[in-house]
Amino acid sequence: MKILVTNDDGFHAPGLWAAVEALKDVGQVFVVAPDRDQSGVGASLSLRRPLRAYEMAPLVSGGQDKIVAYSVEGTPADSSVLALESLVGPVDLVVSGINQGSNLGEDVLISGTVGAAFQGYVRGYPAVAISVGAITDTRFEVASAFLHLLGIGLAQGSPVPATLMNVNIPNEPIEAIEGVQVTRLGRRSYSESVTSEQDGKHTYYKINRGTAVYQQEEQAEGTDTWALLHKNISVTPLYTALTDMERMPAVEEIFQEYSHKLLGR
Amino acid sequence: MKILVTNDDGFHAPGLWAAVEALKDVGQVFVVAPDRDQSGVGASLSLRRPLRAYEMAPLVSGGQDKIVAYSVEGTPADSSVLALESLVGPVDLVVSGINQGSNLGEDVLISGTVGAAFQGYVRGYPAVAISVGAITDTRFEVASAFLHLLGIGLAQGSPVPATLMNVNIPNEPIEAIEGVQVTRLGRRSYSESVTSEQDGKHTYYKINRGTAVYQQEEQAEGTDTWALLHKNISVTPLYTALTDMERMPAVEEIFQEYSHKLLGR
Amino acid sequence: MKILVTNDDGFHAPGLWAAVEALKDVGQVFVVAPDRDQSGVGASLSLRRPLRAYEMAPLVSGGQDKIVAYSVEGTPADSSVLALESLVGPVDLVVSGINQGSNLGEDVLISGTVGAAFQGYVRGYPAVAISVGAITDTRFEVASAFLHLLGIGLAQGSPVPATLMNVNIPNEPIEAIEGVQVTRLGRRSYSESVTSEQDGKHTYYKINRGTAVYQQEEQAEGTDTWALLHKNISVTPLYTALTDMERMPAVEEIFQEYSHKLLGR
Amino acid sequence: MKILVTNDDGFHAPGLWAAVEALKDVGQVFVVAPDRDQSGVGASLSLRRPLRAYEMAPLVSGGQDKIVAYSVEGTPADSSVLALESLVGPVDLVVSGINQGSNLGEDVLISGTVGAAFQGYVRGYPAVAISVGAITDTRFEVASAFLHLLGIGLAQGSPVPATLMNVNIPNEPIEAIEGVQVTRLGRRSYSESVTSEQDGKHTYYKINRGTAVYQQEEQAEGTDTWALLHKNISVTPLYTALTDMERMPAVEEIFQEYSHKLLGR
Repeated sequence: MKILVTNDDGFHAPGLWAAVEALKDVGQVFVVAPDRDQSGVGASLSLRRPLRAYEMAPLVSGGQDKIVAYSVEGTPADSSVLALESLVGPVDLVVSGINQGSNLGEDVLISGTVGAAFQGYVRGYPAVAISVGAITDTRFEVASAFLHLLGIGLAQGSPVPATLMNVNIPNEPIEAIEGVQVTRLGRRSYSESVTSEQDGKHTYYKINRGTAVYQQEEQAEGTDTWALLHKNISVTPLYTALTDMERMPAVEEIFQEYSHKLLGR
Repeated sequence: MKILVTNDDGFHAPGLWAAVEALKDVGQVFVVAPDRDQSGVGASLSLRRPLRAYEMAPLVSGGQDKIVAYSVEGTPADSSVLALESLVGPVDLVVSGINQGSNLGEDVLISGTVGAAFQGYVRGYPAVAISVGAITDTRFEVASAFLHLLGIGLAQGSPVPATLMNVNIPNEPIEAIEGVQVTRLGRRSYSESVTSEQDGKHTYYKINRGTAVYQQEEQAEGTDTWALLHKNISVTPLYTALTDMERMPAVEEIFQEYSHKLLGR
Repeated sequence: MKILVTNDDGFHAPGLWAAVEALKDVGQVFVVAPDRDQSGVGASLSLRRPLRAYEMAPLVSGGQDKIVAYSVEGTPADSSVLALESLVGPVDLVVSGINQGSNLGEDVLISGTVGAAFQGYVRGYPAVAISVGAITDTRFEVASAFLHLLGIGLAQGSPVPATLMNVNIPNEPIEAIEGVQVTRLGRRSYSESVTSEQDGKHTYYKINRGTAVYQQEEQAEGTDTWALLHKNISVTPLYTALTDMERMPAVEEIFQEYSHKLLGR
Repeated sequence: MKILVTNDDGFHAPGLWAAVEALKDVGQVFVVAPDRDQSGVGASLSLRRPLRAYEMAPLVSGGQDKIVAYSVEGTPADSSVLALESLVGPVDLVVSGINQGSNLGEDVLISGTVGAAFQGYVRGYPAVAISVGAITDTRFEVASAFLHLLGIGLAQGSPVPATLMNVNIPNEPIEAIEGVQVTRLGRRSYSESVTSEQDGKHTYYKINRGTAVYQQEEQAEGTDTWALLHKNISVTPLYTALTDMERMPAVEEIFQEYSHKLLGR
């Protein structure tokens, strides 16, 4: 089984290597990730310039010789396309993450984590974008366990649909997790503001993302933001119509089982 | 009435100024557009670097003094955010285009045209992404007429929903247009391939978009690609769930009327 | 006579068009300049990515039809190379500027104004980098008169050496200018400091240029910085050995004459 | 003794780590280098955007704990400035290289290797830019021995002038090296050509460096290019006036001694 692991925090991000550790015994892992942090670039593709990819030493403890790793001078989606069309070829699973910071609601459109997974999905591969809801002091252990179970399930022939699943994990120890919910996207979870600064002869503008606006009153039950706020793992099947309403029951059935295995209840 | 016009082909693109000409007598037009062509960047936001905006002379024939125009050293979505949060403020309508080349199916995720309109939509403004289905020898007259009607309707208090409408126009003279269809997104309309090249000590990779793959057998009736192939103007209400299934009837009702006005039948 | 005009402040900078106005009646003027401000990039060439050039309307009052203008998505040196090797071909003179802010001493190495002129010089064309010593409230009239005289001299067959002359003009009215001095480069005129900022999970560093450090005690008579401080126009013949010691007498002779014509004394 | 090692081929380049291996027992080595290959950027500084620096594991065999290493999202000169003004502070020596490919003649102006060393020189530190004359199949052993000797000499109080020395080494085994020559810069060693390509609606231009033009007839004895062609190590003291004519005898004296130690004759 071949697994592509990519991300948008960049090749040096600890979450990327937590994902690799979780999957390296399940199948052959290929890492193709951006060389720089690429927050906010969404599904952006570099159609106008050539890209360079460096073969790199994998940043894992043990088993380095089994893992092939590249860092790419491009976006997360560039990395996916380069991997799937040239450096690696067809795979059985695309994993993007583990991202530090949730990717929820309409903001998935500017998420590089989702953008990288999207390029796997449109090529017909099961694709998982996975994020933990904290930018600092991020706990990767629940996300790692989640990926490990998913990988084992796939290796054993479990029905993982060739869809794009956007997974968000609360930044909590496993015993504080309430459950796994299959959700639809909520409204946006961040806001942007613009500040300006005078520098010599020029004015510069800076787009700043606000802090998460999980205003409970705006978030309906059944959305990804609601789920995360209530300490549930949120799994949203994204699709042409970013929320795939029709495939929700099938995915729900699969994840009830995973929820039991993961949480032991 | 204040109208923001932006695009992803860049400040110099003729389609941008065709949109401005179509709207400049309907309301006060503000142009805030990227200074360079930005194809493929989707909803990408430059969260990591300061941006500069230049005030520019508008490229229109007559009425220059009424139009305020800026070119921005950033993405289409950066331009929208800068406009709506700082340079212009609240508006009554956001128009992104007129793009040279259709933006159909799942590829809307990497469309800068749609990405710019998206930033209007999430702020609660009616937003229109508008494209013509030809990269060269592009005819803007039907798209211009469409925008002009939409602007007049809005000025007269017509119900334009605060949603994001993705409009694609066949590259045909008006008499060859079959009608206006409210559609859902089809499957993707382009494919990417990767080529590589050796340059001195380095290998470079290039992501190339294929030509449009409107394979009729894959495109179901009711999708945007089907509509365009059959010489219909396609209007897709995008939404959290990129296709907004529920709002389709309301939008359909509005556009039946526009279809009559535009086509005279 | 064909004249290439370029700069590093970008296509929209008023100093570029002041240079064009000064030269447009002397010969055929071609403008090929970066589309964005490029301060600090020196002689940098974009060897790793393709460049786009837009043909543009010249920003002059009258005579637009005689001027060919391009904006280039690259550095000042890229613009020169593109012009001289492809868009324009051989010329009789390369002018880079009029820059807002002096380019003095060792800092010429990171000056884009000088970097653009350098590409003319290495191809065997007379090349002039010209700057005025003020970033804001910049007076272009003395620099314009200087360029006009130089252009007329060249048109009449005056001996302009195929060298690179770095010209700096005090930001003063012409009656306050003391004279024209042929100088050698002084020590550096700016200093850099580094500040850092925490943004989410990352630390960002910013390189800031200090204000000009024209400390009189450090600046020997005969240097460009000394000349400017004493309200002289400074002309430094740059060369393989950035200061061309041997050619200084010849250049000095030429500029004594220009000094008389320009200042009337 | 503190030594800063940087380069323009990027953090992953083997020449950078060959320099570190040569110096790691001589003093405390700090590596601060660009995260991507930066050929052609010269002394370019990123004055318009914030930079990120990643602390990295050094790519050496043994002694990792003694070496502090950063990769910087910027140019070679950015890396030097960041190191000397913030990450490292004052040092006793700045080494830039070992570059794959010579940096000769007027082309030093667009050399990132020289550009990084320049930022050490202007701050008053001895600075060495060092290159080997081959882009592929590059032999680092002579350059490594050269750096090791220089480092030991400096540690023992040998007079290394606080100047910028541009060192070029023939790509030969040590027994084929004729000697060490202190040289002046020759004429340029490369030429650029421009090719163009049509891509969809746009024309793209590409600046290509020609192969080295060491035409012997153009290269005078005493220049760096002449020295390299005749299998000599070339040491050019660069300076305000890129060739420092006055300091040449003093540097010559020093390098006669090194020449004896290095070559044993």
